[in-house]
Amino acid sequence: MSIIDNINKLFDHRIRLGIMSILMVNEKVNFKRLKELLEVTDGNLASHIKALEKSEYIVVEKSFIDRKPNTQYGATKLGRAAFKKHIEALENIIKRQMK
Amino acid sequence: MSIIDNINKLFDHRIRLGIMSILMVNEKVNFKRLKELLEVTDGNLASHIKALEKSEYIVVEKSFIDRKPNTQYGATKLGRAAFKKHIEALENIIKRQMK
Repeated sequence: MSIIDNINKLFDHRIRLGIMSILMVNEKVNFKRLKELLEVTDGNLASHIKALEKSEYIVVEKSFIDRKPNTQYGATKLGRAAFKKHIEALENIIKRQMK
Repeated sequence: MSIIDNINKLFDHRIRLGIMSILMVNEKVNFKRLKELLEVTDGNLASHIKALEKSEYIVVEKSFIDRKPNTQYGATKLGRAAFKKHIEALENIIKRQMK
């Protein structure tokens, strides 16, 4: 087994790491807030959200507030489990540095 | 400042993370050994080595052992500093999960 075995390819991008990190500690976050927190462009954020949605790591919830569309995102059970495993794998790599 | 600001784009790949992680704790490692440790193909490893070499995070040292070519890799000072910063950024993301 290699040291990078449990590093999830789907999280091999800082923006995806950021999205998941935010959704692990906040149940629902809307697009605008994610954008502000990560300081990324609309297109960039949208493409990474799509990838995470496709793999069923996050879910999209569309609703209206004062007749304005409000799209919220949340991490799925699958996504939470996958991210935890990824974080554990990163922790193992970090521990190697401290020996 | 965003939580992903110090995540280095150049390390946004599990194989690069693996290469750097190995070179942080071993002064010199040859291609064959890196390949074994990371369980990746020649082409895949070579392309990520090239990217890290281009950004001067690793150096290549070519020599001969018993007339056979022996190519070794090592992390540069710049690479070590960049990887440390990246690891610190990952640690911050991990810490957020534990609150």
